[in-house]
Amino acid sequence: MQKEFEDKLKAFKAYMQDIEYLSSALSALYWDARVCSPKNGLHFRGEVLGFLSSEMYKRQTSSKMESFIDYFQSLKEADEITKAMTDRARREYERSMLIPKERYRAYVVAVSDSEAAWELAKDEANYSLFRPHLAKLLAFNREFIEYWGYEDSKYDKLLDYYEPGMTVEKLDTLFTELKKAVITLLDRIKSSPKKIDNTFLRNDYPIDVQRRLCDCVLKRMGYDLDAGRVDVSVHPFTVTLGNNDVRITTHYYSKEFQSALFSCIHEGGHAIYEQNISEKLTGTMLKTGASMGIHESQSRLYENILGRSRAFWTSFYPETQEVFPQFKDVSLDDFYRGINAVQPSLIRIEADELTYSLHIIIRYELEKAIFDGGVSAEELPALWNEKYREYLGIEPQNDAEGILQDMHWSSGNFGYFPSYALGNLYGAQFFHTLKKDMPDIAQRIVKGDFSSLNDWLKSHIHQHGAVYLPEELVKKVTGEELTVKYFIDYLNNKYSDIYGF
Amino acid sequence: MQKEFEDKLKAFKAYMQDIEYLSSALSALYWDARVCSPKNGLHFRGEVLGFLSSEMYKRQTSSKMESFIDYFQSLKEADEITKAMTDRARREYERSMLIPKERYRAYVVAVSDSEAAWELAKDEANYSLFRPHLAKLLAFNREFIEYWGYEDSKYDKLLDYYEPGMTVEKLDTLFTELKKAVITLLDRIKSSPKKIDNTFLRNDYPIDVQRRLCDCVLKRMGYDLDAGRVDVSVHPFTVTLGNNDVRITTHYYSKEFQSALFSCIHEGGHAIYEQNISEKLTGTMLKTGASMGIHESQSRLYENILGRSRAFWTSFYPETQEVFPQFKDVSLDDFYRGINAVQPSLIRIEADELTYSLHIIIRYELEKAIFDGGVSAEELPALWNEKYREYLGIEPQNDAEGILQDMHWSSGNFGYFPSYALGNLYGAQFFHTLKKDMPDIAQRIVKGDFSSLNDWLKSHIHQHGAVYLPEELVKKVTGEELTVKYFIDYLNNKYSDIYGF
Repeated sequence: MQKEFEDKLKAFKAYMQDIEYLSSALSALYWDARVCSPKNGLHFRGEVLGFLSSEMYKRQTSSKMESFIDYFQSLKEADEITKAMTDRARREYERSMLIPKERYRAYVVAVSDSEAAWELAKDEANYSLFRPHLAKLLAFNREFIEYWGYEDSKYDKLLDYYEPGMTVEKLDTLFTELKKAVITLLDRIKSSPKKIDNTFLRNDYPIDVQRRLCDCVLKRMGYDLDAGRVDVSVHPFTVTLGNNDVRITTHYYSKEFQSALFSCIHEGGHAIYEQNISEKLTGTMLKTGASMGIHESQSRLYENILGRSRAFWTSFYPETQEVFPQFKDVSLDDFYRGINAVQPSLIRIEADELTYSLHIIIRYELEKAIFDGGVSAEELPALWNEKYREYLGIEPQNDAEGILQDMHWSSGNFGYFPSYALGNLYGAQFFHTLKKDMPDIAQRIVKGDFSSLNDWLKSHIHQHGAVYLPEELVKKVTGEELTVKYFIDYLNNKYSDIYGF
Repeated sequence: MQKEFEDKLKAFKAYMQDIEYLSSALSALYWDARVCSPKNGLHFRGEVLGFLSSEMYKRQTSSKMESFIDYFQSLKEADEITKAMTDRARREYERSMLIPKERYRAYVVAVSDSEAAWELAKDEANYSLFRPHLAKLLAFNREFIEYWGYEDSKYDKLLDYYEPGMTVEKLDTLFTELKKAVITLLDRIKSSPKKIDNTFLRNDYPIDVQRRLCDCVLKRMGYDLDAGRVDVSVHPFTVTLGNNDVRITTHYYSKEFQSALFSCIHEGGHAIYEQNISEKLTGTMLKTGASMGIHESQSRLYENILGRSRAFWTSFYPETQEVFPQFKDVSLDDFYRGINAVQPSLIRIEADELTYSLHIIIRYELEKAIFDGGVSAEELPALWNEKYREYLGIEPQNDAEGILQDMHWSSGNFGYFPSYALGNLYGAQFFHTLKKDMPDIAQRIVKGDFSSLNDWLKSHIHQHGAVYLPEELVKKVTGEELTVKYFIDYLNNKYSDIYGF
């Protein structure tokens, strides 16, 4: 019995390893398409991605896979990792096998074309260039939801993919409370007599100097550049190409100090998570984040809770002033308040930490309207603009600063956006626990010591990869279920300090 | 019967198309490993390459492939392309199926490790870091030759891979005549009273200016940058990642004018060939060069016959002088003689056009000694140095400028080097025919018109891809079999003009 188990496990791991190799090739070709490919090569690249995805799909839905799942599910004595690996394979199996192979392959080609169309459409601020592609992807996803079947909400099926166990019902509860708290705080800030001047953040910042500062910050944070690299793409992203190869991208704007730097810190957070997952998980398909929400908890913890903290800038401000003399006469306190100023704006990735959640809630409500309310690609821009007017009091002047700003939908990632807001909630809850274990964390950051922080995150979260489901992980790390409480406390403390109420 | 043929052909092409997709993914990951990968990611990348190669191997040696080959070989009425596609598949099938799958997979991993070791060894000018890897690759290749079987010469089996139909016997004849002619010319040049001063080619050439000049030359030559890109790697190379995606690399040296520019023109020649192959050949595995020798004929035709011609520089010299003021007082004539000066040297890729062939003949003789004479990795550096002393009268001072200078062996490309010298022969023979069709070609180049040249090459050579075997192609284009005559005539004319004898 033990011998049979070991042989089967070895075979299962070898089988999963091949799927990981395919996944690595797909990630590398994806990265290349976004960062390097000459434009005329993108169509053929889409076909290659389609082929490799269908090879992966074949393996994830084969009768061999089915028999591995059956065997390991029936065992009582399997260890934690084998169980998690089997569960994950089963989820993929059930999700994939219900989609006819040719439809899935066609979908991957459509996604690749859509991504290229989106880049062009965004450049030209012209939604109509992207609309037919988006309509096609929506139709594919609606078709897939029918294959999978659903209970109360169609959108649940998409949410569950990025955040296992997440539902419209749970999100409605969390987001209602969050929206209320954010809007209350926003009102207090608007009526506060204290106004923050952060015009010093819009000036001339030579791109090569920005690049050097970003590299320096990333390195000090703990991002390993011997196992990663930083490139430029239209929209920043992180991708793992394989063991010891986790790459990030950013986008430099010569007139904006914050954009590239904070996107680097954000993506760096994702990358440190990936770089710190235990190598033991190679060949299990668990060498990845626990969920997109947990992934975002790491990126947003680095970007906001750390990257926009007084402690962080006490450490980095002197050298920032050195390379950017325009900050010479700006005090650390003014700088700190400047990067935390609240100002409703149109672009999600440039939003302040407070209004950011409203950008996500808008996208969540739109996706719910698409999949549970039958809203079409044609109706979206008007709805988008309406919600921006209603929640943030401002309206896009063109599609590039409106509905075309994010690449997610062009890649078919419907149901992803809520992860960012969940990331804020998870992140604040994790950090609350971390502070209990390490009350002097702020002093350590002031000294430029990120290793205690990284060690804590690695041992409690990173190393485990996807061994635990998000709800198990949160419970395990913090002893509680997910709650909005810690994030709202964090926001209240931070902004009452900054705006003095 | 016709219906059956069409159905089978459709299925065969779909099958070959998948092999092309795998080949495209392999090329992309190879390019990335050389140009982008962080160093710690290279080992896992090797495993991914091993996996994809073995997937390709599986398809090339499947019983399905065998039955396609059997079916199409038995047909009399098959068209030229179907025949060529079947022949090529059969060659690959016979070559691959004799190697045990696991041995081949292990070989691909060994190659990837060897390439990484070579880079390090070259950096440190330390052959002993590379030797065990080379020994391993030699052992693999010797083992493979035994699987394949051989008649007179083991080395023939390696030559035939890059140059179908080529043998040690034929090369001995061609290279003996070539060696004699080159050495005779070299002696006349050495004893000529005319000495050429080209010290103006070693000065300070800012790398960003070099880069702009290279891009400009490549664009004007006809390299399509919307379907390609130029990057930096240790050793320049060209790779086709798929339709409309043919990339080249180079290496800039701030003190050398010639190195990056002529390597760009060389790789640009390869790339123009690949970019001009008919799209009709997609999914036939014939959308590639006819052979490595034919490929080199295009790169060397651009690099030398054109790139080092008076006509070429009449066109490009004014703008070169503009961006590099150090040439202000150098006349076009002196510049032309300077870039054609003959001076025995150690580095193949920086050799002048005349002594270049001796670098190749040395490598050819060493490879023959390895595979037919049983010479070991340990003995190679001494033999290398000895031959340089004997043929060129100079000797490497360290391994980096000796045996470690080329990456070919680190990639397991034994039998490749002769292609470069064959390229010279094919190229001169093709150009001789082109000049008969287009006697005013020099005047066209002077005017910066490369399109008549490219059109001729495209219609006679490029578009056909690998539909014809090299010997068929040479016969078809020039009406003759391959001969050294035209290359020797070309060299005699060129150097008697430059050195005035």
